[in-house]
Formats: sequence, C-alpha cells, structure tokens
Amino acid sequence: MKDVFQYVEANRGRFIAELLTLLRQPSISAQNVGVTECAELVLRFMSEAGVDARLIPTAGYPVVFGQVLAPGAARTVLIYGHYDVQPPEPLEEWKTPPFEPSLRNGRIYARGAGDNKGQMFAHLKAVEAVLQTRGRLPVNVKLCFEGEEEISSRNLPGFVGANRELLAADMVYASDGPMHASGPIVFFGCRGLLYLELTARGAKRDLHSGNYGGVAPAPAAHLARALASLWTDRGKVAVGGFYDRVRKPSRADRRALQAIPFAAKSVREDLGCPPATAADAGGYYRRLLIQPNLNIAGLTAGYQGPGSKTIIPHMARAKLDARLVMDQDPDEIEDKIRLHLKRRGFGDIEVKRLGAVPPSRTPMDHPLGRAVVRAVKQAWGRRPILFPNLGGTIPDYLFTQVLGLPSVWVPYAPHDEANHAPNESITIEGFMNGIRSTAAGFFEIAAV
Amino acid sequence: MKDVFQYVEANRGRFIAELLTLLRQPSISAQNVGVTECAELVLRFMSEAGVDARLIPTAGYPVVFGQVLAPGAARTVLIYGHYDVQPPEPLEEWKTPPFEPSLRNGRIYARGAGDNKGQMFAHLKAVEAVLQTRGRLPVNVKLCFEGEEEISSRNLPGFVGANRELLAADMVYASDGPMHASGPIVFFGCRGLLYLELTARGAKRDLHSGNYGGVAPAPAAHLARALASLWTDRGKVAVGGFYDRVRKPSRADRRALQAIPFAAKSVREDLGCPPATAADAGGYYRRLLIQPNLNIAGLTAGYQGPGSKTIIPHMARAKLDARLVMDQDPDEIEDKIRLHLKRRGFGDIEVKRLGAVPPSRTPMDHPLGRAVVRAVKQAWGRRPILFPNLGGTIPDYLFTQVLGLPSVWVPYAPHDEANHAPNESITIEGFMNGIRSTAAGFFEIAAV
Repeated sequence: MKDVFQYVEANRGRFIAELLTLLRQPSISAQNVGVTECAELVLRFMSEAGVDARLIPTAGYPVVFGQVLAPGAARTVLIYGHYDVQPPEPLEEWKTPPFEPSLRNGRIYARGAGDNKGQMFAHLKAVEAVLQTRGRLPVNVKLCFEGEEEISSRNLPGFVGANRELLAADMVYASDGPMHASGPIVFFGCRGLLYLELTARGAKRDLHSGNYGGVAPAPAAHLARALASLWTDRGKVAVGGFYDRVRKPSRADRRALQAIPFAAKSVREDLGCPPATAADAGGYYRRLLIQPNLNIAGLTAGYQGPGSKTIIPHMARAKLDARLVMDQDPDEIEDKIRLHLKRRGFGDIEVKRLGAVPPSRTPMDHPLGRAVVRAVKQAWGRRPILFPNLGGTIPDYLFTQVLGLPSVWVPYAPHDEANHAPNESITIEGFMNGIRSTAAGFFEIAAV
Repeated sequence: MKDVFQYVEANRGRFIAELLTLLRQPSISAQNVGVTECAELVLRFMSEAGVDARLIPTAGYPVVFGQVLAPGAARTVLIYGHYDVQPPEPLEEWKTPPFEPSLRNGRIYARGAGDNKGQMFAHLKAVEAVLQTRGRLPVNVKLCFEGEEEISSRNLPGFVGANRELLAADMVYASDGPMHASGPIVFFGCRGLLYLELTARGAKRDLHSGNYGGVAPAPAAHLARALASLWTDRGKVAVGGFYDRVRKPSRADRRALQAIPFAAKSVREDLGCPPATAADAGGYYRRLLIQPNLNIAGLTAGYQGPGSKTIIPHMARAKLDARLVMDQDPDEIEDKIRLHLKRRGFGDIEVKRLGAVPPSRTPMDHPLGRAVVRAVKQAWGRRPILFPNLGGTIPDYLFTQVLGLPSVWVPYAPHDEANHAPNESITIEGFMNGIRSTAAGFFEIAAV
C-alpha cells in the first residue's frame, strides 16, 4: 500500500481544495437549496477521478452513481454516501458561515464537512489514488451517493428496489456518523428512525390573552400535556408497547459495548454537562446504541421573540423523533403513539409522519467486515473499536434487508463533528485516513 | 353638544388622515422600533390640537404629557393612553402590511389601529373639537400617553410616583381594549398580569439525536413536563395556592355579568371554534373577567422550519402569562409558581419575570363613572353595557391604588379588533363615536 499512501499524501493540498469546493455548494434537501447543483458538482468530481459516472433521476433529488469495473475481480464493493446536508440554522451560532469553509485547528469547518461530504469524498479520492498508482482497482467498485439522506432518504427505497442489478455487489462499505473520542471505529448497523410532527390547533388566529384568556382553547398547553404524557417521570417512554419488540442484547453485543473505551470526562466536555445516564461504557452505549429513544427535536407556538407578547397561540407544533432498535418497526411504533394520544385525550392533535427508516444489523464476525477492520488498522496504525451499530440512522436496511448484503460502516468524521449543529467539522487527519482506509479496504476485501 | 358633534363630523376626513399618519409610524416597544419617533409625532399632534404638551423622559420611553386648563373649572379629568404597539409578527398573515394602514369595510387596518393609537387619538381630537367650537373646555384635562404599555408599563409606576401633583385629578378616563360584539361598554378595572419566561437548558449545543439520543439531557421534554404540571387534566391551574386570594364575586358583579348580552354565535365565529367554556354570559364572563388564567404565550425549542431536523435542542423556552384578579398579587403568584416547579422536580428550570401588573377595580356606582356612562349614551344613542372589569391588563392600579382615583374605561375599538394579532383594526364608527364620547364626557363630568 506504500505507493497508494504516498500518492494520497502527495495530493493532500489538492484533495482538501477540492473538498472545499464541494462544501461551498449548499445542498439543503429539507429546504430545497442547491441540491441539484451539488449533484452536478459530485458528478464532475467522479468523472475527473476516472469513474464512469451519471445522474440517475428519482422522484426527488438524483442519485449520483458511478462504477469502476476491474476485469477479473472476484468481489464487488458498493459504496454509499450522501451529498445533501442538514439545514444550517441557527446561523448566528456559526463562527464562520456554514457554506464558506474555514480551516482552523487542523479541521475543516462547514455544513456537511463531516455529514457527509467529507466522508463521501474520501471514498472517491481513494478510487482515484488506487487508479492513479496501480492503473486498476483490485475489486469492482460502485459508488451510490444520494441527495435525500437528511430528509429520511425518501426515494432511496424506490431507487434500490428498481436497481437491484445495477447495485449487485458482495458487500456495502460506507462512511457516516462520527468516530469515537478515542479514535477510529467500525460499526455494523444503525438505529431506525420515526419522525413525526404533532400539531394542536385552537382558534382561527392568535388571540389577546387578556381578552380571551380562560374562554379560548389553549393549544400550546394542550400540546405540552400531550408531550408530557409520552414519558414517565423517570424519562422512559410511556407509550404502551413501545419497548415490546426491543431485542435483548446478545452476549456478543454486551461484550462489544463493554469493550468500548468510555471517556466520561471527554463526554462531559463534549456535552458541556453530565450525560443523562450511567457513567460507564455498558450503560452509556446500551442507552445510545441498543435502546430506543424518543426526542422532541423542535417546539413552536406563539411569540418567540425578545420580551413579552400576550397572546394565546392559535397553533402549537412539536417535531418528535424516535430512534428505534431491532426489532422495532416504525409503522407499528407510529400506530402505538397515535393510539396513546387518542387514549390520553389528545385525539384532536394532528400527527403527520415526516420520515421512517427501520433499524438494521450485520453480524460483527462477517469475513468481509473483518477485512474492513484490517484496512482501517492499516490506515490509522491502530485497531478500530467495534460498535454493534450506530446510534444514528442510515438507510442500512436497504442494503441488509432489501439487497441482502452485509454492510460495514467506517466513520471518517471526528466524535465532536457537530453534525446537524452549528460549526460542523471534519479533521484533516480523519479525511486523509479515510482515503487511506477505503483504498486499503479494496485490497483487503479482494484478498478474502 | 350639537355644535361639537357637528365639528367632529365636518372634520371626519382630516381626523382619519391624521390617524393614518400616526399608524404609519411604527412604535414597537418590545423590539425598540420607532417608539421615540412616535412620541415626537404624538407631541406634534397634541400641540396642533391646542394642548400645552411636552415629552417627559423616563428610564425607558418618554411619556407624552399635555394639559388644557379651564379657568374656574371644578373638575379635572386625567386621560390615559399609550402610543406603543405590539410586535406585528407573524408578518405573512397580514393582508396589508401592519404599518401601511388600509381602509376596508368601514375599518382602518394597521398595527395599533385599535390598541391603542386609534383610541388614544380620539381623546385628543375630542379636546380639539371642544376647544374649536366653545373656545374652552368645561373641565381641566390632562393627557398622559405612555410608550411602554405593551412591555408591562415598566416605567409608568416610577413616573406616576414621581409626578403625583402633575397628575392630580378627580378621576381617570381612558380607552383601551375592545367593545362588546353588541356595542359600547364601560368598565371599571382590569385583570392583572404576571409574565414569566421559563428556560430549560441541556448540553452546550444542539446535538444529533442519533448520536446522543438517550444519553444527553432533553430540555424540551423536561420543559413540556414542567408546563404540563401547571394544569390539572381539567384545565384548572395546579399551582398550589393559585386561587387562594381570588375574591368571591359580589352580587353586583354577578348581576353585571348576567346582564352582558352573550352572543354565542358571534363568539364562535370570532374564534373559528367553540369557546372553551359554558355558552352563557354568566359562565363566559365569569371565566374571562373575574377568574384568573394561566396561558402559554410562546414555545420555542430546536428546529421549527419545514421538514425534519434530527436534533436534541440544547435549550427550550416558554413564555407564560397569568391574568390575575382581585386580590391576587403578582409577587405572591410568582413565588407560588417557582415553589411549584421546585417541588415537582423542575427546580433547574430558569424563571425570569418579564412583567407584572396588579389587578384593579373601581366601584361601578361611582358618580363620576355614571357621568361617563351618560356621555357614551349620548355619543352612541344607546346605553353602554357595564362590565365590572376588563379581561385584559392595563396599569389601572396606578390610578386606583397609587393616585387613589376612581378610574373609568370606555373602549372605542370593536370586539374583533384583533389586537396583538395580525390584521388589527378599528372601525371608523368606533373612532368617531369615541371622539364624541370623550367630548360629551367633559360636559357630563363638569355637571356632577
């Protein structure tokens, strides 16, 4: 691998400059800002790297698909990533503007730096590096970069279902989410997601709280009571049957969770406050990885500006996201939440689904997964930590359940990448070692 | 009064044009927009009407004070109003821009049209009308127009306390709030107000709900539970001792409440939904006027834009306003709410007071009040409905408790003025009859 790694190092400046170009292009799928332009840009980068690339339209934003076939190669690796990003708000909390990348402290700061443009781009630069040094790849590589991951990959199920042959492979290799505070990790699945919007309505307009307080409906208080009913006083989800299908952790799961080095101090510094759970790896990672969670992602009603405004809001809204684990089913959980609200007297609150992704898992001892673990060790010079799955959600079920492939994930972004938040970043070390990991992965996978 | 009323009618066009000029000047005290400029404009209008006027500085926005002394007059009437307005948000719900007044359907639409510029201006035009037709007023008139009513009249207590001699009078006559759906009213006090901002904090920044969901503090859910704890399932305030000092309605109160014509259909049309209380005058007005209420005026946390964003908000905030009745005390109620939160496990939630005004009452049978009732009858050609007090809050306690004066209120804005909401308006009939009411009031008061 020495020649490949040397090429990567020799082209560091250009690789970073190209990534900055990609980060300068907004691609906010939730707000329909720049996504199509970004797809064109990714296509151009793919073609320039020597990949046979094209845009494949979907009902939403296009998939940028590319492949490099290696004559005689036994294995095919399908690489997945996404070029869309989260909304950048709140803008005033960014130290430098989200779409004007800034290099500070060995990091690149920009919306999408970690999630997922920097990681996705590392794969592409690995393809380039191996092609340029060896003239060919040791495996067939297929690149599938979507533009709707941050809006629950709406059209990816349709795309995967309609393109099984195009996507045919031996495994999926992908990079998303953050590393551990102590270094590189490999994970083998993810929690699922159910995203709901709850809306309580009152009068047809905001009312003066003096002229109507006591006689008008109060949707904000109604919504607060509905939300409060979703948890017990101890913070467990109070929705009937919510935990019914949660898998008991296997011995292997528990061993893996215990083996994750838990840096209590680092977690506390990262959060700026103590975590909400037991300060040991077993407890922390059990709650984060193999237990479900129900979260209020947003609340809005009435006046939110400075000072006081005395109104009865005519409407109150909450965004709820549930992280689901094997074998919870998003449809079933949504039904249970709707039933819960109805039973508790909140049947008048509108429930709208904004997204759903089932949880997914690949066995941790799969030979192709172990090949990837070896590749990451080569790139970083140390063994990665193995996670049974990610706390976040990725459309991994499409690979494991729809395509039936083993799926292995290697994050290239730092533990404190601040994805989905202001001042998102990727370390330059993570980006460069990411390129090396993918490149080494091609050879390790070919050797299985 | 014929000559005065004729002058008013003859000058209708100019009076309206002048009011439009006043409405074009924003004066949003909560947002520090245009308030000082508006004070200068009110000063100019006062001087032009023949009033000896000046700005009196306070620690915040100035009071526009004016007087017209009537040699030999036995009575002095202190007229109170405010030239500041509520924030205009949400702007997208205004049919015409809030500071570009629009005449439609016999109404003037603009922020402040009803609350309170239109009503305040009617008093000034009444002074002009009597001066122009009679050469002098039958009573001494003092005009006290403040610029901070919409931010709880922060500096009015200091101003009143420091200017007792300047404000010396026999009574207060003022106009604010809406009329009844069926016509003019006179009221004799108001509910008080306590405005609190509750803030729950979690991590130092918004977190990705996948990467932290289950292990990070969840301030939005915490706040929702705290808010829900403030009410019983039946909607009564659950804060211990909240109702302790609420006066039992007197027989006179109950008679007055029963005598208010209750237009159930009109209320339902106004709200766009059924009211949250019994559909009769006794029940509706008891809840609105002589019962306290606790309202969520605003809620904010995390992502509120279109679509989904999967974050754990680092902060959640609620604005709460309590409408208080005799003899509730804002300080005591704030203490009780703080104690409630502490006892229920929400002691970590920050509570910040944004405003407080005690409730206030004047006896409904006061001779000067009855003089005003007769004046309103002259202006409208019908007897006004008598309300024991207003559901809203005005700094009436400064007049009744600090200055020790009887205080009588006559709203000139329509029942559906949409004050504090988009598309606020005053009817031209209400504005014109307001001018006539004040003018007739001077003569009726002089005759007591």
